[in-house]
Amino acid sequence: MSKKPLRAVLVGFGNVGRKLAAMLTEERDRYPGLAELALRPVAIFTGRHGAIVNPAGMDLGDALRWYKEGGGFPAAPMTVMDALRLLDYDVLVELSPLDIAQRGEPALSRVRAALEQGRHAVTANKGPAAFAYRELAELARRKGVRFLFESAVMDGAPVFALRSALSGCRVKALAGILNTTTNFVISRLERGESIEAAVRTAQRLGFAEADPSLDLEGWDAAAKTAILANFFLQADIDPLRVERRGIAGLGAADVARAAAAGRRLKLVCRAWRENGAVRATVAPEEVDGGHHFAAVNGKGAALRIETDMMGPIWIMQEDPGLADTAAGVIQDLLAVAAGRQGEKNGK
Amino acid sequence: MSKKPLRAVLVGFGNVGRKLAAMLTEERDRYPGLAELALRPVAIFTGRHGAIVNPAGMDLGDALRWYKEGGGFPAAPMTVMDALRLLDYDVLVELSPLDIAQRGEPALSRVRAALEQGRHAVTANKGPAAFAYRELAELARRKGVRFLFESAVMDGAPVFALRSALSGCRVKALAGILNTTTNFVISRLERGESIEAAVRTAQRLGFAEADPSLDLEGWDAAAKTAILANFFLQADIDPLRVERRGIAGLGAADVARAAAAGRRLKLVCRAWRENGAVRATVAPEEVDGGHHFAAVNGKGAALRIETDMMGPIWIMQEDPGLADTAAGVIQDLLAVAAGRQGEKNGK
Repeated sequence: MSKKPLRAVLVGFGNVGRKLAAMLTEERDRYPGLAELALRPVAIFTGRHGAIVNPAGMDLGDALRWYKEGGGFPAAPMTVMDALRLLDYDVLVELSPLDIAQRGEPALSRVRAALEQGRHAVTANKGPAAFAYRELAELARRKGVRFLFESAVMDGAPVFALRSALSGCRVKALAGILNTTTNFVISRLERGESIEAAVRTAQRLGFAEADPSLDLEGWDAAAKTAILANFFLQADIDPLRVERRGIAGLGAADVARAAAAGRRLKLVCRAWRENGAVRATVAPEEVDGGHHFAAVNGKGAALRIETDMMGPIWIMQEDPGLADTAAGVIQDLLAVAAGRQGEKNGK
Repeated sequence: MSKKPLRAVLVGFGNVGRKLAAMLTEERDRYPGLAELALRPVAIFTGRHGAIVNPAGMDLGDALRWYKEGGGFPAAPMTVMDALRLLDYDVLVELSPLDIAQRGEPALSRVRAALEQGRHAVTANKGPAAFAYRELAELARRKGVRFLFESAVMDGAPVFALRSALSGCRVKALAGILNTTTNFVISRLERGESIEAAVRTAQRLGFAEADPSLDLEGWDAAAKTAILANFFLQADIDPLRVERRGIAGLGAADVARAAAAGRRLKLVCRAWRENGAVRATVAPEEVDGGHHFAAVNGKGAALRIETDMMGPIWIMQEDPGLADTAAGVIQDLLAVAAGRQGEKNGK
């Protein structure tokens, strides 16, 4: 087991960050596929619970235990941006939440700073790829490092990994059900619950944000649509340029009208080429009862990819949880580690 | 455009082979993603329409035109096995049909012969991976070449490419609807047609074999299940060891009984770990009307993958045609070409 640890700056140590840390340490025995991956943080920054910095690197399991026992870390000894510029590390792992009003900041600047330093950047935050995919991908290419964000859309379901799997094909259009909270809320509306009650349930189950407007107004879906359009259709758009209608205005009557026609309401994301440009939309649609979209229940998600060569290809996920998001980050870290291995072999 | 052509021995020049040739020549302008791929055959063998051999390589477009104008090639000047052993080529492209009674032969021996010569082997034939995956994968590894068969299951939908995309995960179980003809026939039974009439329609549409028993008795599905079990679950089984029940005995009454309960009959393939071994089955199942399996219609297919880390992941395809099968072969050829590029860069 010649795994050389990846030295990491971790930003964000909430549910996903701690789950990632647990999977790589105390839960590691459950996941034989992780044998080749080791993460050695040189810094861990949290949103509101301090930070810990050790330029020599620290044991991830020790850090996790310390966090849990103390309910956080001490006050941060330096800023995230200073850490990204001054410390020696292999990869930034950015796990802070999306901020639409700040146009993807501060995650975007952190990813840019890491890439500028010639470090890899892995993020579960949708902001960087939704607001600056083209710039950051080009910067990474120029620096010879990776900018990866598999968990930003459909958690660990291999969405972005499909591009190389579909080599030779040109993507023409995308359609998906990508926001968990709205899909869950609509399912509850179908059972006669109110939007408010459904949102409270989603919050209690831990997957809706404290402020649900990001989900209900379609911003999360718009961010994902922008990323997909940028990545698969070579667009250069951001969530503000996605034509967006959320589900905040929907009620029992809308759901019942669809059901009476054998259909289901879904918040559908779309992106496609039209007259040399790329259009992207997020809006509630009535989908046919026998369509794959209608079978996306609860927290599930689905993405339909049309190419120039084949009938449509679908990737879907069923019942994802925290581990699924962490798994997307892990896939990215394994890609970074494999590339590093390749570099060494090439030299 | 520095594409160095892949020198190929093509075996099988039926619908898929000719579609592949057309996509790489006369239809090339439709597919900008193929710019980097060029195939230069040193030999093309057909099943019953002769062969053409030119050790210096020939233009694929010329060969296709010659075949179409003459209704075939001249009598074969040498055997396939001699060609595989004596000619200089980069890759065997094996497109002959599956033969269960011959346990995957003669395709299996052809793939073995190519790999033994240190050539890559790409096949759309299910036989080699269904009957000898472990041996051939190990042989390829030892020789430093690729043994690829993306189109053997779900055509060009990236099934086998998912293994690297799901890096870090260990696959626990697979379930799929993988045989086009039976799925199409059951759809027709639901509309009140007889099995015989439905099979005739499938034959007329060009996707059922002249002898439909391979499909109806579940052999095609069993071969695909064996490949998936061998590839994803490290099994070492073949189609004869898949517990198999086809749809030959089904009739309108079975379909109607399922429909009355809001369910649909589907021929479902399964493989999973059980007590340290791998079990694999093919059998008709009644699936719930709201399940993704129920939404697989006509020629569509779906595969559900359970891993140790995430909720189930699905890959599906909608309305595949000849180009989809050719696209799977193209993906494999691009992987071979990329690897060759990598080798050169490494040196």
